[in-house]
Amino acid sequence: MTETIRIVEVGPRDGLQNEATQVATATKIALIEQLIEAGHSTIELTSFVSPKWVPQMADAADVATRFRERTDLRLPVLVPNLQGLERALESGVREIAVFTAASDAFNRRNTNATIDESLNRFVPVLERAKSDGLRVRGYVSTVLGCPYQGEVPLAEVVRVSKALHRMGCYEISLGDTIGIGTPRKARGMLRAVADEVPLSALAVHFHDTRGQALANVFACVEAGVRVVDASVAGLGGCPYAQGASGNVATEDVVYALHGMGFNTGIDLSRLVAAGRFICHAIERRNGSKVALAWPS
Amino acid sequence: MTETIRIVEVGPRDGLQNEATQVATATKIALIEQLIEAGHSTIELTSFVSPKWVPQMADAADVATRFRERTDLRLPVLVPNLQGLERALESGVREIAVFTAASDAFNRRNTNATIDESLNRFVPVLERAKSDGLRVRGYVSTVLGCPYQGEVPLAEVVRVSKALHRMGCYEISLGDTIGIGTPRKARGMLRAVADEVPLSALAVHFHDTRGQALANVFACVEAGVRVVDASVAGLGGCPYAQGASGNVATEDVVYALHGMGFNTGIDLSRLVAAGRFICHAIERRNGSKVALAWPS
Repeated sequence: MTETIRIVEVGPRDGLQNEATQVATATKIALIEQLIEAGHSTIELTSFVSPKWVPQMADAADVATRFRERTDLRLPVLVPNLQGLERALESGVREIAVFTAASDAFNRRNTNATIDESLNRFVPVLERAKSDGLRVRGYVSTVLGCPYQGEVPLAEVVRVSKALHRMGCYEISLGDTIGIGTPRKARGMLRAVADEVPLSALAVHFHDTRGQALANVFACVEAGVRVVDASVAGLGGCPYAQGASGNVATEDVVYALHGMGFNTGIDLSRLVAAGRFICHAIERRNGSKVALAWPS
Repeated sequence: MTETIRIVEVGPRDGLQNEATQVATATKIALIEQLIEAGHSTIELTSFVSPKWVPQMADAADVATRFRERTDLRLPVLVPNLQGLERALESGVREIAVFTAASDAFNRRNTNATIDESLNRFVPVLERAKSDGLRVRGYVSTVLGCPYQGEVPLAEVVRVSKALHRMGCYEISLGDTIGIGTPRKARGMLRAVADEVPLSALAVHFHDTRGQALANVFACVEAGVRVVDASVAGLGGCPYAQGASGNVATEDVVYALHGMGFNTGIDLSRLVAAGRFICHAIERRNGSKVALAWPS
């Protein structure tokens, strides 16, 4: 029997949020529609952070509302706090994602809170989400290194992942935010977390800043992870390095997984078309090598 | 004890041969000098094919002669036949490489000979090389797929590799010429060949056309290979796909291997500088993500 790997498409949120270009709401919606057509079952739609912090996501309610009837799909939105959750609920959202770092230095700069302050802030968010029947995904960033503090203790990655899981997150996405990890370290990190949180509740999220992302994905898939975050066309920059790339490209991940005999439910040809559409729309180089090599 | 992986730097030959730009001899020599300074022990210098076929390598004798005193290093040159070997010998070369494909269709188009005709042609080349005390490396291309015939039977990859090894090649480099393979297939191919040729006599050579190269390298390193071909700055295009990338970038491979705890003898900072030098000289985008993320 063919084994399935679920791709969590983060292009419309993690991707577009970090692009220099402000993208029109209609373009975002068209992209999401094409990603659904390509067979994606899980797409992170947008972020209900304050538009003051992230102007690229000011149209969060418009984007989320557009897809409120698609209860057959998992369409999480990022939510930083109760206020964000209220806005998400008004838009008919059925799944949210909360985020913290495994590095205190990073979390302070990113959210102006310590890790423990972030975790405490999530308690009422998860309670409210639970009472409204929402699923909650948890992100842990900087799991393999931090741009401010350097090394991130593995014990801290495990502690934060465990805390989010206990709090009620059904899935924990382990993110190498700055794309600094290498395959054996990635696999070691995954295994350490899997000692405390069921492997079936873990996802991996790699950035390709140093070209390691797909090797890291492969190492973690071989170690048993079955949920992989990726961004169509490699959307998303890396704010810490000029010219460096961001998320691993979904096309390249899907190509690898299909070649390895996994089922993803995704039509690679349609996915390539969706990536070309958004790159054309925002005048960006396509970050997927599969897309560059795909017949036009 | 730290385990060592030997990198075979193919940028000056496999890389520059496939670049659109004609590179000045002085620039090639400066690049090779910088690669030596960075700690490379093995660098493929040039190719003694006919300048009619490959004008980029018309200065083969000048490049090879320049480094004839460096007997402390392995500096192979590509040689297609006895005539090429004669020219190489005149330039003081001490190691050559011969090449064939595992796909008959590819070999016919590339060298106007069947695989068996190529192998037969190598017999006198290897005899002559042996009598002159030269080491000979063997390349097998299209080991995971062919642009003309599609699938390449694994049995054929094994047969050709074994033939080259028996003929006297001390090392067989297994090349995914069109970058079509994925990690499990790459590993399976390596293992199949290693059933017939000692693993210590095998090297892997991946192109990154579909972004899979580093994952494939990782899979093969985990399976025990200890020699990896790579091209500084990812030099080399893919003649079969517009805009697609060629060789895996040495910087990205070295970053991965060091992160995995291997010794390569290479100073990554100097290697990045060498890659930047050649990209600037030939006005090419740097194909190494490590180089793009490296502080300037």
